[in-house]
Amino acid sequence: MKSNRIEVLDTTLRDGAQAEGISFSLEDKLKIVHALDELGVDFIEAGNPAANPKDAALFASLRQEVPLRNARLAAFGATRRGNIRCEDDVGLAAILACGARVATIFGKSSAFHVDKVLRVSRQENLAMIGETVAYLIANGMTVYYDAEHFFDGYREEPEYALETLRAAARAGVAGVALCDTNGGSLPWQIAEGTTAAIHALSGAVRVGIHAHNDSGLAVANTLEAVRTGATHIQGTINGLGERCGNANLCAALPCLHFKMGFEVLKPGAFARLSDTARYVSEIANVALDERSPYVGDSAFAHKGGMHVDGVRKVSASFEHIDPELVGNRRRVLLSEVSGRAALMDRLAPLLPGLDAKSPEVAALVDVLKQREAEGYSYEDAEGSFALLALDTFGRRQRYFEALDFRVTADLPGQRLAQAVIKLAVSGREEITAAEGDGPVNAMDSALRKALGVFFPQIARVRLTDYKVRVLDSRGTGSTTRVQMTSTDGRRVWGTTGVSTNIIDASWRALADAIDYWLAFCRE
Amino acid sequence: MKSNRIEVLDTTLRDGAQAEGISFSLEDKLKIVHALDELGVDFIEAGNPAANPKDAALFASLRQEVPLRNARLAAFGATRRGNIRCEDDVGLAAILACGARVATIFGKSSAFHVDKVLRVSRQENLAMIGETVAYLIANGMTVYYDAEHFFDGYREEPEYALETLRAAARAGVAGVALCDTNGGSLPWQIAEGTTAAIHALSGAVRVGIHAHNDSGLAVANTLEAVRTGATHIQGTINGLGERCGNANLCAALPCLHFKMGFEVLKPGAFARLSDTARYVSEIANVALDERSPYVGDSAFAHKGGMHVDGVRKVSASFEHIDPELVGNRRRVLLSEVSGRAALMDRLAPLLPGLDAKSPEVAALVDVLKQREAEGYSYEDAEGSFALLALDTFGRRQRYFEALDFRVTADLPGQRLAQAVIKLAVSGREEITAAEGDGPVNAMDSALRKALGVFFPQIARVRLTDYKVRVLDSRGTGSTTRVQMTSTDGRRVWGTTGVSTNIIDASWRALADAIDYWLAFCRE
Repeated sequence: MKSNRIEVLDTTLRDGAQAEGISFSLEDKLKIVHALDELGVDFIEAGNPAANPKDAALFASLRQEVPLRNARLAAFGATRRGNIRCEDDVGLAAILACGARVATIFGKSSAFHVDKVLRVSRQENLAMIGETVAYLIANGMTVYYDAEHFFDGYREEPEYALETLRAAARAGVAGVALCDTNGGSLPWQIAEGTTAAIHALSGAVRVGIHAHNDSGLAVANTLEAVRTGATHIQGTINGLGERCGNANLCAALPCLHFKMGFEVLKPGAFARLSDTARYVSEIANVALDERSPYVGDSAFAHKGGMHVDGVRKVSASFEHIDPELVGNRRRVLLSEVSGRAALMDRLAPLLPGLDAKSPEVAALVDVLKQREAEGYSYEDAEGSFALLALDTFGRRQRYFEALDFRVTADLPGQRLAQAVIKLAVSGREEITAAEGDGPVNAMDSALRKALGVFFPQIARVRLTDYKVRVLDSRGTGSTTRVQMTSTDGRRVWGTTGVSTNIIDASWRALADAIDYWLAFCRE
Repeated sequence: MKSNRIEVLDTTLRDGAQAEGISFSLEDKLKIVHALDELGVDFIEAGNPAANPKDAALFASLRQEVPLRNARLAAFGATRRGNIRCEDDVGLAAILACGARVATIFGKSSAFHVDKVLRVSRQENLAMIGETVAYLIANGMTVYYDAEHFFDGYREEPEYALETLRAAARAGVAGVALCDTNGGSLPWQIAEGTTAAIHALSGAVRVGIHAHNDSGLAVANTLEAVRTGATHIQGTINGLGERCGNANLCAALPCLHFKMGFEVLKPGAFARLSDTARYVSEIANVALDERSPYVGDSAFAHKGGMHVDGVRKVSASFEHIDPELVGNRRRVLLSEVSGRAALMDRLAPLLPGLDAKSPEVAALVDVLKQREAEGYSYEDAEGSFALLALDTFGRRQRYFEALDFRVTADLPGQRLAQAVIKLAVSGREEITAAEGDGPVNAMDSALRKALGVFFPQIARVRLTDYKVRVLDSRGTGSTTRVQMTSTDGRRVWGTTGVSTNIIDASWRALADAIDYWLAFCRE
């Protein structure tokens, strides 16, 4: 059983779907199935066909689609209910009917839970496990046993917890997954339980780990189980899952592969890990935590001056792996603590040949500090930063001059917001108006419309994100920072504006977005 | 040195401030210092007075404030630079001048980094560590040595890594913190390095751990170090910090206390842990990850039917600790009955005598679900919630009717924003206008001015906070949630509005703020 290959079961669609705020549509689930298949996980636990009619529909759809290339579908469900025959259990009938050839069957591995929650005899619980496994195998399925509450059970009554695993093993399971169901176990408790399970099963059955993150330890517990001999892991993309989530595969898998030397996923798949994390978070409509290990946008972002300096000298100083291995990238952030080295990283592509020790660069550092004191942040605003640099160096070209604008907004529901704008390009004036869903939206439309007369390609530029942050707490007179992201279909750039007036702040970010495109992106 | 008490050094204001998107004002920092002091951490690493003038200003402010009750302030900084005297080092001068009595001094504990990044001789590096520590101690400070890159260094050249610790110990440090600077170490590597450090220092000096979360293991690595004998930990509230963050104290501390039996924080402080996590995230203006272990709103939220059933029978089924121990609460999602219990908690003070089983309450549950699907959140908006309840019950009185309003805003710097409003109170109409710093500010002033004709006491009502959150990412047409906090000097209440138009959303929150005061607060 000792092998360098670890089986991966993804339960994003089952345990992940139990996360607060998650509600996958059938189409969402199909997209995720294919993304997981591309990644090369071994099993996709796609749902519980007995408990959820939407899951049954998913399995039905999947049967009609092209077959998966790498992964196998698994259906999740309970052991048969107490004191009935497997043949009479509607849950098992749903699993057999769903079309998946793999079943993950959960049962109680804690004597305490058998007594207090399940409320059947301990012997009957063992029979439920064994008979369910045997029944599904007899009907052609490959079966894994999810040993619910195993670690709690092992601490309370070790012999009974192990006996539930033996019941599953005797019935012919392909593997048992030891579950830390309430996420309360510490890594050394995981090691102890896993070791005992492997020993009890004499190596005849694959042992796996299913960890939850209630103590912040799901990834560590997963690694610890593998180190102790487990060869099957369960988890979810981005750690989605009930309460604090499941083991985050996007952290656990690169640790297993790059740090512990195990084979997981299909060859080359790690390069798409960051994209997959973002894709699933988009589908789930849950913002990806940018601080996520390996895959977050901040994971290889350097801000502190010494860190920036260090990472330029030796990337390993502050990067534990090469970001490209997981499809991520290094970013150097600009801030008052980041210093000249970071500035130069950003300036070099814009203004080749610039000398880091020149008085211009020193002046820019001062300007940046002052802007940051006013509430500006250029971290995600490379467009505004580039324009500020040009400004400071006296090299900025003004492509248009705003002569006048006025936005109006009425009582909700009465009328769309309106914006009137008058501007000049090379001495030629243009005045126009536009409506929009809110004043910023109207202003955005009007500016683009007026400039379109002079620069028709501007039709390709559009805003993809708009964020507002209130920087202090002075009621409606607070300072507001607006951050925008724009694209022309090829490039993506961020801009920012700060003002006590949200219209002003939005205008600044918007004007920068257009100016940046005119200065750097136009062909 | 073996003790049941673990020293806690919080570095939210130093390492945490290096997180992407974080920019604490002086006022923010003072608030966080006091929150940490209340929690009872041992040390508050408040900043780097040499590198950052804002940090120096913070130390200066703290000297003029009331003394801290539990914590000691620590200043962070580097060892002296190479080949100069401590007396000539401006960084050390800044530390001595800042007023903190504790210094955390970082230096290189990896021979590779000494060679490649620091670029001084290995002997000189040892001298830099020892002389810096001795110099600060001679000037009356308590000094901790932060052993940067210790674990990488220990894996590469163990003897040199340990020698840097000995250099600090010989000079008299109170403790050494072993840093996993790039967050790449696995728990068993942490155990190995920590054991070696304790052995090398013969128990004469306290050994601590400073972990980063790049591998998703910062909490586990912290616990592992303590299990191996470390008695000092460093981390941040909510794990804020550069890249993927630091060890999250909100997860590590309850693990250490409730699961491992160590004393941390002051007695009774754990009950405020969830509030502190939320308070710091509010100040940082970074949404608290609701899936955060222990302190997130989802941490004890149960959604799956079987989990809900299980947790009712035996709370430990799906809860690893009692949520109240950390100031959190159990939530049962999508369950009408318990949904009602939570509602009743809020409704009882507003509408005494209301029957939880009444059809009105059932209708309110439905309305709330629909509103939440639209993006509303009533958690911090008790004012809007109360009005919604009155509305649903057909008991809401309309104190004023908005007949018309229009706000206008011009090019930045040209003119103040203006709002015109026309409203009716008991059939009497009033039209007025006001200017303001931005359209929302103008609208706020105009509404108050018009209503002041009928309700003169309204002059006492003012907004104290205004927040904007963009809920999705569709450029300037995104759905926006506005949250306002108002006060009349006696009471404080929150209101909210959601719309794709920020003016609409602000109007809804503003109108609710006034309506709530008229309905519930007016004498």
